[in-house]
Amino acid sequence: MSTWQDYLKKNKEAHLEELVEYCSIPSISSLAEYAADVRKAGQWTLERFKKSGLENTAMYETGGHPVVYGDWIHAEGRPTVLIYGHFDTQPVDPLNLWTSPPFEPTIHDGRLYARGATDDKGNLFAPLTVIEAMLKTAGRLPINIKFFTEGQEEIGSPTLPAWVAENKELLKADMVFSADGGQWFEDQGALQIGFRGLAALQVDMEGPAGDIHSGIYGGAVANPIHALVRLLDTMRSPDGRITVEGFYDDVRALSREEKSRMAEVPFSEQEFLKETGAAALFGEPGYSTYERQWVRPTLEINGIGGGFQDEGLKTVLPSKAMAKISCRLVPDQEPDKIKDLIEAHIKKHCPAEVRVRVTKSDSAAFPYIMEPGHPGLAAAGEVLKTIYGKEPYWTRTGGTVPVCSLFQRLVGMDTVLFGFGLDDENQHGPDEFIRLASFEKAQTAYGLVMEKLAE
Amino acid sequence: MSTWQDYLKKNKEAHLEELVEYCSIPSISSLAEYAADVRKAGQWTLERFKKSGLENTAMYETGGHPVVYGDWIHAEGRPTVLIYGHFDTQPVDPLNLWTSPPFEPTIHDGRLYARGATDDKGNLFAPLTVIEAMLKTAGRLPINIKFFTEGQEEIGSPTLPAWVAENKELLKADMVFSADGGQWFEDQGALQIGFRGLAALQVDMEGPAGDIHSGIYGGAVANPIHALVRLLDTMRSPDGRITVEGFYDDVRALSREEKSRMAEVPFSEQEFLKETGAAALFGEPGYSTYERQWVRPTLEINGIGGGFQDEGLKTVLPSKAMAKISCRLVPDQEPDKIKDLIEAHIKKHCPAEVRVRVTKSDSAAFPYIMEPGHPGLAAAGEVLKTIYGKEPYWTRTGGTVPVCSLFQRLVGMDTVLFGFGLDDENQHGPDEFIRLASFEKAQTAYGLVMEKLAE
Repeated sequence: MSTWQDYLKKNKEAHLEELVEYCSIPSISSLAEYAADVRKAGQWTLERFKKSGLENTAMYETGGHPVVYGDWIHAEGRPTVLIYGHFDTQPVDPLNLWTSPPFEPTIHDGRLYARGATDDKGNLFAPLTVIEAMLKTAGRLPINIKFFTEGQEEIGSPTLPAWVAENKELLKADMVFSADGGQWFEDQGALQIGFRGLAALQVDMEGPAGDIHSGIYGGAVANPIHALVRLLDTMRSPDGRITVEGFYDDVRALSREEKSRMAEVPFSEQEFLKETGAAALFGEPGYSTYERQWVRPTLEINGIGGGFQDEGLKTVLPSKAMAKISCRLVPDQEPDKIKDLIEAHIKKHCPAEVRVRVTKSDSAAFPYIMEPGHPGLAAAGEVLKTIYGKEPYWTRTGGTVPVCSLFQRLVGMDTVLFGFGLDDENQHGPDEFIRLASFEKAQTAYGLVMEKLAE
Repeated sequence: MSTWQDYLKKNKEAHLEELVEYCSIPSISSLAEYAADVRKAGQWTLERFKKSGLENTAMYETGGHPVVYGDWIHAEGRPTVLIYGHFDTQPVDPLNLWTSPPFEPTIHDGRLYARGATDDKGNLFAPLTVIEAMLKTAGRLPINIKFFTEGQEEIGSPTLPAWVAENKELLKADMVFSADGGQWFEDQGALQIGFRGLAALQVDMEGPAGDIHSGIYGGAVANPIHALVRLLDTMRSPDGRITVEGFYDDVRALSREEKSRMAEVPFSEQEFLKETGAAALFGEPGYSTYERQWVRPTLEINGIGGGFQDEGLKTVLPSKAMAKISCRLVPDQEPDKIKDLIEAHIKKHCPAEVRVRVTKSDSAAFPYIMEPGHPGLAAAGEVLKTIYGKEPYWTRTGGTVPVCSLFQRLVGMDTVLFGFGLDDENQHGPDEFIRLASFEKAQTAYGLVMEKLAE
């Protein structure tokens, strides 16, 4: 009888073709005009679930973008694992920085380039091919699997909490394995025991009622860009420390053990600067780069705009200016409280000569951290050791998977982060890609961990 | 024999139709894709010069947008006046704030709405109709006229200085009357004895080489928007005083006489706020609103942009941010020196963790002021008194007509600012318009002043 590994080898080209098809759906969850495409990616996922042999497959409405579910629960006495992933993607602008069109997947040099290739379609598709391989060869899975995917991860899953709260029984499992995660090194595995949370808002400022002549009125009418610049500058010190009152109040101190484990992870300043293209290291004094990325909260201006931005000169005193702000949160910060603190700061520091409006984003996520002794972590760790030939590092990651804290808080399940993308794969930027070798590693890892958990 | 006044009355509708045609040419000088339209507006001007009876009409190349010239110099022994205006316009964005399309002129409620209607096509066209009226009725003009128009006023006339330097003889006159100016009140005339100058530049900042994931990298890579915000915030104090080192060094003190003349001009805080839509008065402490507008220099951010500005949320740590800055200058500030000071300030205050690039704009203008005893001012003052029935106010204006300082510095001619637009006519914003009554006032005023100067 052929094994699941044989099956994956035999179907390698076919699976790659399917992934290309999957990545060609522009399922951008943040832009209203792509809502139908998000649904289309969900439909694709649903059909692919059926084809793999999953049962009880269904697309469920959440009030926002849909979720897609399937399961195979015939392994009596064995643990039940919920696999999580998302089929929505980030937007693609600035489009002109892409080497090839973001939704026309291109394969070269052992990489598949497309928006969503690594975050998260490729990493989600890998375990699905393993389930198919096992069901088509052995006719069964070593453990019970619930496969759960969503379409609004990239906007912070605004309507998911209510849906999860209403569907706890459907989702209930012994643990979650999230296919939305990543590895730190090509040659050594890493287990990520925590994610940062997210809180976001937009600040809109208005000065004059319309754009006015900067010659006639300049000097006598407050410019909302200047006011915005002043306000934003009150939020962070030059060295990167957040100066919003109360911002750090709930930050849990880093344990000496975790600090020393993090220090074991190799770091090359030169490579980091090369990878990011930044001119110099930067961040809160007293913390290492990893600590700044993983265990310290941020306040980041994701976008700013106002006045005349085109080629040339337009000597206007603009009516409006806006900034989009998001924070990455760490235990035990809470998204709503952080948004309130920032709003209070804005109200307190906004100059009186302009009008300000704060719009809090529904996209929010609690930070997530799991206990180091969890059985899922142990199994994952052994598999990583088998695959890479070395003990995995234990780290956190700075990104956000809102569903982890959601599962922990609402369903009582901890999540093992088990994804195989690498940091340099431009997850939210132009020229996103996935290494085909990582995709294969992910297949092997999911197969082995399912067998390991059956023991 | 019918008078020029009769002629203008009789041809009122026809002239209005022509102005509509003139204003429907999208002659936006700042955008390269409209260069042909600027030229088209120049061509329209040239043909209209010929039709009016002007002689020696020609379009001249300047290396940028063209200039258009025509004259009538048969009034021996009488003064020669150069009339100045411009046929280019400001850009139109944000287009969605226009009630009717900017280049489809619409007339209602005694106003003609179009980009360029008041700034400067309407104000330029008025004296031209007077010249036509005089030549068609009396067959001659009371004085010698040189009519000079250009197509790059709205971008600071970058290639005009060299052209004027080479064509001093052609342009040489006893004085200039500029049709690019305005009145302060509908019911009382004003003579503006000075303009502010202009200096502009753009700041571009770069952090990471591309947009990167604010979760993975946030906190450990400098965000160019934060760096830009910090830098810009070092340039102005919260109360509007410019804090660029040396910025005020060359500012000439305001004389007690001029200060008291300015104080005579009525000012209503309520009307000013209604007109601008601003929430409150604002500006440099120790100065009146008029002084802030007319005799104090500014540093204004005309536009800012960076990162994600569309609908929704994109948690990106952006690669780039930029700001467009322009300064209005007063005697005796010099544009190049001010640009150098700002550049030095930027170099000194830019954080080391980002890369900065300063691009100085070629668009520049010296501030302009004329002596109160000038004979052109006296004639203009008498005409304004005739038209409005009261002595005109003596003021300055905060806008910039680069050509005034150019004529003064290169050809030794002073310029009387003799335009009839009003401040509320949205010169650089959406829904620009000209009052038809102002257009008629301009016609009468130019006719009378030509007669007055002949005495």
